[in-house]
Amino acid sequence: MTAAPAAPGRVPNEAARLLIWIDGRLVDASDAGISPLDRGFTLADGLFETMRAYHGTVFRLDAHLRRLAAGAAILGIPVPADVPHMVAAAAGAVRDLGWADAALRLTMTRGVGPRGLAPPVGVDPTAVLTASALPPREPLPARSVRVCTATARRNEFAATAGVKTLAYVESVVALAHAHTAGDDDAIFLDTAGHVCEATSSNVFVVAGATLRTPPRECGVLPGITRAVVLELAGAMGLAAREDVIAPHDLAGADEAFLTSSIRELAPIAGVDGAQLPNGAPGPVTRRIAQAFAELVERECRP
Amino acid sequence: MTAAPAAPGRVPNEAARLLIWIDGRLVDASDAGISPLDRGFTLADGLFETMRAYHGTVFRLDAHLRRLAAGAAILGIPVPADVPHMVAAAAGAVRDLGWADAALRLTMTRGVGPRGLAPPVGVDPTAVLTASALPPREPLPARSVRVCTATARRNEFAATAGVKTLAYVESVVALAHAHTAGDDDAIFLDTAGHVCEATSSNVFVVAGATLRTPPRECGVLPGITRAVVLELAGAMGLAAREDVIAPHDLAGADEAFLTSSIRELAPIAGVDGAQLPNGAPGPVTRRIAQAFAELVERECRP
Repeated sequence: MTAAPAAPGRVPNEAARLLIWIDGRLVDASDAGISPLDRGFTLADGLFETMRAYHGTVFRLDAHLRRLAAGAAILGIPVPADVPHMVAAAAGAVRDLGWADAALRLTMTRGVGPRGLAPPVGVDPTAVLTASALPPREPLPARSVRVCTATARRNEFAATAGVKTLAYVESVVALAHAHTAGDDDAIFLDTAGHVCEATSSNVFVVAGATLRTPPRECGVLPGITRAVVLELAGAMGLAAREDVIAPHDLAGADEAFLTSSIRELAPIAGVDGAQLPNGAPGPVTRRIAQAFAELVERECRP
Repeated sequence: MTAAPAAPGRVPNEAARLLIWIDGRLVDASDAGISPLDRGFTLADGLFETMRAYHGTVFRLDAHLRRLAAGAAILGIPVPADVPHMVAAAAGAVRDLGWADAALRLTMTRGVGPRGLAPPVGVDPTAVLTASALPPREPLPARSVRVCTATARRNEFAATAGVKTLAYVESVVALAHAHTAGDDDAIFLDTAGHVCEATSSNVFVVAGATLRTPPRECGVLPGITRAVVLELAGAMGLAAREDVIAPHDLAGADEAFLTSSIRELAPIAGVDGAQLPNGAPGPVTRRIAQAFAELVERECRP
């Protein structure tokens, strides 16, 4: 799988600021390139990673690839050896086009299979990579979100808890409900009633100079930005730890924020209709976001 | 969407005894007909139904379509008006080819969308229909299965609990683990520890002349065959009810069996390595299976 060279003017979908590679081959967005028998389509039998490229460099690519490999081991899907090259080539194509930032999504499925759930043997995984140009990053207050608590619960007892499989329909439904209610996102609790995560972000709660985020045992996806925030906060002399968080800890927090690879940090302005006292963004959130931006510049500035 | 006429010798995939329609158009299995941006592929944002056609007639098609509509309402996906026609046309094509029985799978996704979880508006759903020829039905003892209890749990607190979404990767992983352990299928418990369902079947437990199957509250998919068995058992003078079932109720049952549209009834020969005393199949399972076969003949015989 090798990415076709991307030259401005010849690239499909450039008007839409979207590039798509299937198994390393650049295709047009209107191309129907996936088999209807692909198990990613029929059974959500696959994984994905969403990464942010800054100036043509994927932030923490190694961490994304490690997480992909860990998920692939749980599903029993072999990761094609050229996946790292595919992602780096896509980031390079984006840079050559002059896009500042881009969202890269790598989707990897078990491949095409016959009827039934049992994983077929000897099939080749399917790899799809999309690159979408991102608008300029918004300043911190503009990224603030109001969240509600989802009525559905995350399942910390799933074999795929914390694994970024294609099974995102629960998050789709929860996000649609949140939007209908006038909120920006929904916070899932786990089945024990502890705070877990938002529909596609991790959550941090700040009390005084202490940051807390739910541990893996609560079923959270181990976010790349989440891990970076834990590192940064420690280095800044803040107390930062994984800890079980009750809903009232979130509702009564001084500050809170979401993290994801695309949104980076998003301050939480309100929870279930009530504003957080030291709202969006509070001083700790601002400090972390500033440190995060500086880290990105150090690691990704050409 | 109208199904192309299917004539033997001109039909793609006839050698594989597999027919595929995408949005009503007959395609070849090697065709890559799905957009890489289809939300069924990227987010498991869709539903499916697996139906059995006998002699070219889909058993309980109306019940399948009602379940599809109920799931589509939860996901907020409009069901295309010609879906019933598509399924009936596929069953007719199968009959024209002389296949005795066939597994029909209807997959319906929200359609193609841009990046992100939020459901796009104004998109057309994608409908894929596959028909696979089934081998002659095995006699009852040959369908017996040994099951193990899955270590992962089903989430009865999901918004999509009991909805046949595309998010089947948990079942894929559990079935793979069961096969590795030398078992034929896995039984999920719900998060409270009650018996829920197998990876793609419902479960019934028989004690004396009483049949029990877990209720919707335990997160089970409301199986079409499950409903038919409850009807049949009542009509036969057996006590049949939905009831919370503990793992020791299953392990200590006189008889137990799985139900699904393709496998119909499958006797459970053993649970977690221990044989059921009145094994596979016991007298009640035999009576129900016989009544089920007679019902199918009445409803589907041309």
